[in-house]
Amino acid sequence: MKDRVEKLRRFLDQEKMDGYLIGNEINIQYFTGFLGGTRLLVPKEGACTLYVPTVNYEAAKEYVRNVEMESIRIGEDVNNKVASQMKRLGFGLIGFDSMDASTYLKLREVMEDAELKPASKLIWSLRRVKDEEEQRCIRKASELTSSGMKRAFEAVKVGLRERELASEIEYAMRRNGSDGTAFDTIVVSGVRSAFPHGGCGDRQIANGDLVVIDIGAKYQGYCSDLTRTIVVGDTSSKQEALYQIVLSAQNKAMRQIKPAVKASIVDAKARDLIQKHGYGEYFVHGLGHGVGLEVHEPPTLKPKSDENLEVGNVLTVEPGVYIPDFGGIRIEDTVLVRKDGYEKLTRAPYSLQV
Amino acid sequence: MKDRVEKLRRFLDQEKMDGYLIGNEINIQYFTGFLGGTRLLVPKEGACTLYVPTVNYEAAKEYVRNVEMESIRIGEDVNNKVASQMKRLGFGLIGFDSMDASTYLKLREVMEDAELKPASKLIWSLRRVKDEEEQRCIRKASELTSSGMKRAFEAVKVGLRERELASEIEYAMRRNGSDGTAFDTIVVSGVRSAFPHGGCGDRQIANGDLVVIDIGAKYQGYCSDLTRTIVVGDTSSKQEALYQIVLSAQNKAMRQIKPAVKASIVDAKARDLIQKHGYGEYFVHGLGHGVGLEVHEPPTLKPKSDENLEVGNVLTVEPGVYIPDFGGIRIEDTVLVRKDGYEKLTRAPYSLQV
Repeated sequence: MKDRVEKLRRFLDQEKMDGYLIGNEINIQYFTGFLGGTRLLVPKEGACTLYVPTVNYEAAKEYVRNVEMESIRIGEDVNNKVASQMKRLGFGLIGFDSMDASTYLKLREVMEDAELKPASKLIWSLRRVKDEEEQRCIRKASELTSSGMKRAFEAVKVGLRERELASEIEYAMRRNGSDGTAFDTIVVSGVRSAFPHGGCGDRQIANGDLVVIDIGAKYQGYCSDLTRTIVVGDTSSKQEALYQIVLSAQNKAMRQIKPAVKASIVDAKARDLIQKHGYGEYFVHGLGHGVGLEVHEPPTLKPKSDENLEVGNVLTVEPGVYIPDFGGIRIEDTVLVRKDGYEKLTRAPYSLQV
Repeated sequence: MKDRVEKLRRFLDQEKMDGYLIGNEINIQYFTGFLGGTRLLVPKEGACTLYVPTVNYEAAKEYVRNVEMESIRIGEDVNNKVASQMKRLGFGLIGFDSMDASTYLKLREVMEDAELKPASKLIWSLRRVKDEEEQRCIRKASELTSSGMKRAFEAVKVGLRERELASEIEYAMRRNGSDGTAFDTIVVSGVRSAFPHGGCGDRQIANGDLVVIDIGAKYQGYCSDLTRTIVVGDTSSKQEALYQIVLSAQNKAMRQIKPAVKASIVDAKARDLIQKHGYGEYFVHGLGHGVGLEVHEPPTLKPKSDENLEVGNVLTVEPGVYIPDFGGIRIEDTVLVRKDGYEKLTRAPYSLQV
């Protein structure tokens, strides 16, 4: 954690910033290990201050080691407190990660001559590269997620409701040690499988339905992300053909993954293949996204992305084809970028028929 | 939904606003019934426009009825698109709900002479009063939550891990029809029960431990919130005495709930009682919060709140006492404010010993 603060300070030095105000609770977790603070003030030198509401103060005292703490009483305005501290420290140029516009307007008024500058990129340039400890947590989250998919393959059957299948998956991940879900579990069946973010509902899975299962466990704050598409009972030749296209697209893209490769190129490998088969217009999202403390992070694999991959990035690779009134197929794994290419962190069969 | 847009327009008229830009996805859900849009533009007259990323466009076409739609392609900047539309409509004064400061700065530059004004209160003045349909959903979410607590009372035993108890609760809520959890399930035991937001971990519940169980199901987007504190095995007289204080505080506060009462007065009823018994410093949070599409909404029951209760508010009432190195006790129910007082929506026994 201390190391992370020092790295941020090197950026502050380069940007001639006097300090940095962190308002995003996940960023605060990244620098302190604690989820439950409301602001973290990082001056270019000297102690950092974590502002914690009284409701979380005892927990913070138990778990936080690398920063000083101030408690925020019920109804107290943390912005006033932070502004006073920034004035006392004589801040001129202040970077920040994210801030609601109304907070920004208020703070700018109070801070008079100081300049507040949006600078979330500084933090993302750190967070996008996962260190050893983060890799360990995401690897563990990925194992838990894989255990959930294993359970899905066992439990799925004709007549089961989408929601019931979700309950079996979540239960298995929890029992095995998951801290919760990285996002709302998706189980969409039949025509609903054409909705990539369709949640899960009361629909009963029927013979021959495509069923898209998109799940993620969490471990010590870190996420994972895994999707498989299956059919219970009889598959059609169109389903089989589409499945092979999506699977080939994933394979082709995955083989591109290594340091210094452009994110847009990885996306293009999958997109071109799907396009060549005539389904380009049905691949309605980017190929993948970073995964870490949040389930959607930079870098993003998509057309026109100007990002390059680096050792330590963790990414999803998830081509999908969604045909209205027919259904959808998505195949997704979470991978770690390594010096020599990539390592797949999630595990589940690639078979359409269960 | 149409009705809600019309109500917002009446505010626009009063505030002399030409339009309102909604960027919060839950607010968009409130006005369209659909979760998955990225902006909703409400002009003072004429059709509203919902901006939907391609990934969610087919689902939006299926579910959205009351607004026009534009799809946002992968990598396309929605702000540019919205700005062009606002210029075309000749907007001068534009209200908005929430917007990141960097988006605000960019949009202000593009919009030249137009003024962008933070105005989230307009929407909250609608959302804080739940209509019949919303009440139905929260009532159902509360039933599901109560079923989860019933399961917790059955399943809890010495030796069970916090995480395992959470898995049983979530599984039961899901099987009964929950769309997911309204927030990360809290099961904290022993000294960890002194952390109000302690999540749940690997700790095994021991004989005589205080166990705080704080859970919420979701139904059609709507949340509920329920907490009970229990002891498995032998209770101590100090635990029993504290439990009675917290329970009395909840009762006393609850009896105050009716339209036109000040939120601060309801909080004070519970706080004064706890203070009188010498535990004031250990009641480290507000007495309660609104519940709806989000689990934390206005109105807030806390000291110095300037809000008054209204018919249709849904609130938690949740006094708590948290003593470091001893443990915590919180008792919480979700209630609906009615003309004649209140209706309790959550149900679970008030007994410390299981």
